[in-house]
Amino acid sequence: MNRFKISIEYDGSQYSGWQRQSNAVSIQESIETAIYKFSSENVKIFGAGRTDAGVHAYGQVAHFDLSKNKDEKEVLRALNHYLRDKKISIISCKKTDNNFHARFSAKSRSYKYIILNRESPPSIEKHLVWHIYKDLDIAAMIDASKYFLGTHDFTSFRASECQAHSPIKTINKIEIKKINDKIEIDISAKSFLHHMVRNIVGTLVLVGNKKIEASDIKLILESKDRSSAGATAPACGLYFMNVEY
Amino acid sequence: MNRFKISIEYDGSQYSGWQRQSNAVSIQESIETAIYKFSSENVKIFGAGRTDAGVHAYGQVAHFDLSKNKDEKEVLRALNHYLRDKKISIISCKKTDNNFHARFSAKSRSYKYIILNRESPPSIEKHLVWHIYKDLDIAAMIDASKYFLGTHDFTSFRASECQAHSPIKTINKIEIKKINDKIEIDISAKSFLHHMVRNIVGTLVLVGNKKIEASDIKLILESKDRSSAGATAPACGLYFMNVEY
Repeated sequence: MNRFKISIEYDGSQYSGWQRQSNAVSIQESIETAIYKFSSENVKIFGAGRTDAGVHAYGQVAHFDLSKNKDEKEVLRALNHYLRDKKISIISCKKTDNNFHARFSAKSRSYKYIILNRESPPSIEKHLVWHIYKDLDIAAMIDASKYFLGTHDFTSFRASECQAHSPIKTINKIEIKKINDKIEIDISAKSFLHHMVRNIVGTLVLVGNKKIEASDIKLILESKDRSSAGATAPACGLYFMNVEY
Repeated sequence: MNRFKISIEYDGSQYSGWQRQSNAVSIQESIETAIYKFSSENVKIFGAGRTDAGVHAYGQVAHFDLSKNKDEKEVLRALNHYLRDKKISIISCKKTDNNFHARFSAKSRSYKYIILNRESPPSIEKHLVWHIYKDLDIAAMIDASKYFLGTHDFTSFRASECQAHSPIKTINKIEIKKINDKIEIDISAKSFLHHMVRNIVGTLVLVGNKKIEASDIKLILESKDRSSAGATAPACGLYFMNVEY
C-alpha cells in the first residue's frame, strides 16, 4: 500500500460539507472521484476534521492509500486536473508511512472565524464571512475569550448531535483581532466538539453586542447547558486552517 | 436636484462590466434598477471608471441625481436592500454639491492586481486572482516597475479600442509586494488608458518569468507599439480600489 497525505483548500459554499452523503455533493466524494479518474482505484479518504456544509478550508488534511506506486507530484497535478471545475484545490501531496492517520495522528487543529463588522453587506466575500452590521465591542470580546483557554467541560458549546465520547476539551489558543472592518478569531485545540467553534463565536458575539458580560462565559461553561450559550454562528465565516501532527 | 455620491464594492465575475449594455447584466444597470425600485425615479449613474467584465471593485465611486430629497442613510439602506441578491454592495452614500462629478472631479484612481503564485490552482479565490504556477522573480518585477513611474506615452500599453484623446499618462505610484503566495501590485494615476493596468501587469509578468529584462520596459515604452509589450493580464485579478477627489 502507498499512503498519501494531502492538504486541501476549498470554498465550502457549494458543498454539503466534508463528509460523503447520499443525496448531496461533498468535498470527500469530489476528491474520491478525482482519485478514481486518474488511478482507476476506488479509495476512501480520511479527513482530519469533518467540516459542515458551507464551512471553508485553507488547510484540511486527508490521507488515502493507492495499491499502485505513484509520484507525489504526479498525484498532486492529476487531482487538481480532475478538480479543475470545482472550488477545491490540493495544495500539497506527500507520501507518508502507513502509521499516519489524518484524523487520529493530529496533535492540534486550528480554525479561523471571520466576521465582517460594518453597516454594508459583503459583496466579494458574500459567502466567506458572517456579516454583523452593529459595531461589536472587540475589547469585551477579547476579555471574554480568555475564559475559554485551557481545559473545560464544553457541554454548553456542543451540538446535540455531537458524537464525541467526552465534552472535555482543551483550547490552546484563542486570539481576536480587528483588521479594517473584519474581526478574525483564531482558535486552536487538539480536537473540537461538533459546532464548538461556531457556538463559541456566537457567544462571543453576545458579549460584543453587550447582551452578556465577558465574565458570564465562566458561568455559561459551568452551567453545562447548551441553552445558556449563544446561537451557532453561521457556517460561512468558518475556515479550517491547519492541522499539526 | 439632489446629488448623491456613492462608494461601491462588487465581485465583477458575474457581470459584463461597469457600463450598461443591451445584451448583458452590468453593475451600472443593477444599481440604476435598485435606485428605481426605491425612488421610482429613472436615473443614470456616472462612475469614476468603467471596469471591464470580470474586474472587481472595493472602492468604485459614482454619482446620481434624485428630484426628491432623501436621507443619505435611507438611500444607502434602500440600495443595499434591493441589491441583496447581487454581489454588489453600497459602502457609503453622501449628499454632494451639484458640481461634483464622479468621473471628471477625480484627482487620482488606485487599482490593485492580485496574482496567486503557486503550483496549485485557487479555490476560495477562484475568480478573484490570476493564477500563475511558475515562480515569478519578484525582485526583477520591482526593478521593472520603476520604469513606469512618472509621465510617459503609454501607447504600448493601450487597448486598440481605447477612446482616450491622448496616450500620455502619469503614474504616481506602483508598488509590488509578496504576501504569502500572493503578489499584489498597487498602482495609482489620475487616469488610465483602456486595459493599461492589465497590460502593465502582463508585461511585469514577462519580467518575472525572465522572458525579458527589467530594463526592457524603457524600450517597450519608447517603441509606442502595443505588440512589443506583454499580453493583457486576466480581468479576474484586477480591483478598482479607490478614487481621490
